[in-house]
Amino acid sequence: MTRAQLVQTIRDKGSYLCVGLDTDRARLPLHLRDHPDALVEFNRQIIEATKDHCVAYKINTAFYEAEGSAGWQALERTVALLPSTHFSIADAKRGDIGNTSAQYAKAFFETLPFDAVTVAPYMGEDSIRPFLDHPGKWTILLGLTSNPGARDFELQRVARDIENLDEGIHTIRHTTSYLYETVVRTAAKWGSPDKLMFVTGATQAAELANLRALAPDHFFLVPGVGAQGGSLKEVSEKAMNKDCGLLVNASRAIIYASEGEDFAAAAAKAARAYAEEMKEYLQ
Amino acid sequence: MTRAQLVQTIRDKGSYLCVGLDTDRARLPLHLRDHPDALVEFNRQIIEATKDHCVAYKINTAFYEAEGSAGWQALERTVALLPSTHFSIADAKRGDIGNTSAQYAKAFFETLPFDAVTVAPYMGEDSIRPFLDHPGKWTILLGLTSNPGARDFELQRVARDIENLDEGIHTIRHTTSYLYETVVRTAAKWGSPDKLMFVTGATQAAELANLRALAPDHFFLVPGVGAQGGSLKEVSEKAMNKDCGLLVNASRAIIYASEGEDFAAAAAKAARAYAEEMKEYLQ
Repeated sequence: MTRAQLVQTIRDKGSYLCVGLDTDRARLPLHLRDHPDALVEFNRQIIEATKDHCVAYKINTAFYEAEGSAGWQALERTVALLPSTHFSIADAKRGDIGNTSAQYAKAFFETLPFDAVTVAPYMGEDSIRPFLDHPGKWTILLGLTSNPGARDFELQRVARDIENLDEGIHTIRHTTSYLYETVVRTAAKWGSPDKLMFVTGATQAAELANLRALAPDHFFLVPGVGAQGGSLKEVSEKAMNKDCGLLVNASRAIIYASEGEDFAAAAAKAARAYAEEMKEYLQ
Repeated sequence: MTRAQLVQTIRDKGSYLCVGLDTDRARLPLHLRDHPDALVEFNRQIIEATKDHCVAYKINTAFYEAEGSAGWQALERTVALLPSTHFSIADAKRGDIGNTSAQYAKAFFETLPFDAVTVAPYMGEDSIRPFLDHPGKWTILLGLTSNPGARDFELQRVARDIENLDEGIHTIRHTTSYLYETVVRTAAKWGSPDKLMFVTGATQAAELANLRALAPDHFFLVPGVGAQGGSLKEVSEKAMNKDCGLLVNASRAIIYASEGEDFAAAAAKAARAYAEEMKEYLQ
């Protein structure tokens, strides 16, 4: 899906909701647990119930890998159920040396037909390049994540210019920046807004406007609304750009809205509520 | 495998070699390419040929995922072939928010029987914790990697103490440190040398002694010898500790030592050469 198609889809639907399929067998409704293909059947009903309210689906690979090759098959069958009208994301947080990242890109862009994959930045440009170079596909790089551990490294200050290096005392005459800022500023040069997005956690309200300033035209994939406590209103006010520029993800708040037989109807209701709120912010 | 068992195995064998099974279908010997189970058969012969010379195997998940669920099955069957006498590593570079990392830990430590998994540090402690908390298992955290992209972020200077913050000019009166140093120093407090290792690239010769000073007792998994050009001698001189403390990995230099029918014999020869050199450094 191209950027123009994604922006048009958001405008047509009045929604920038991404539904996260973090499907955990331990949390399936009781009546589905003995189903021979329980994960896929659950996903099928969730997709059917939510597709009118969202523009994207995000599949969290961890929940499928946890079941081994049978889980990977469930992932393959779930991807096949995604409507071609929707943007599809493999939330895989991959990243390795070039020849290995090329294999991951093959896994998600060729063997599987995802539009996008999430990637971790630690190993630098050559670990991201094989994803970026895939024609017609998207790379979604971790910027500032929604979890408490973002404080450990992402929110450490990085020294941008060291002028004076003397006996272990460095005088830095330049604005320092957070690591996540260095990551976003640097990676925005590696990939245009037509092929690169950033993950920016909804719980990082204080930094959202800054993130938008660092990458004015790139789309942000925003997790952390719902179970993690981020505010859709705040995200939308601080980080929306003229093309919307947001895909806001909710996983648990939608797919586990009810743990009973009405789970699909409850998911539809939760997704519709997000979409209705989004419609206001888009105006 | 416990730390004491690993150290004893290294002493008994006089080797700290890890063989990397980055098995790429496009590089299989011609006579194997039509084999119905080519990846596994190749791995079977490589394992048989190298097991006397190495103490560990590292399976690079990317090369298996690239083939979808069939590839994941090949990974499962390969793990089943690894001798229980050898330390087994899933080189997967995973890491996500806590509930997701818990699923990855389940994938590699429960559904699959790996001793260890490689993990990326960007998202901080709660993204690593589910791996560290798995009893009897090992977490191998990226420290300083072997690829050119290590310069982009890992070798950026992080400001440890900011004394003077004035109109965008910060005077930092403290030794700054590289991001990788902050990562290793911080994570060494999260996991003891009984359950945590660090990835330290063999190509990063200038930093190896410093890495060892930062984590004197932790094991290092060292890729980058062989195809990437790192020196086994330099790694061993600069980073060995009293318990050896090293697992030096070679993948392509061993498994593709020959692309002909003699690939297994050539792999054995290459592995034996590494092991013989290692025996000298252990004395």
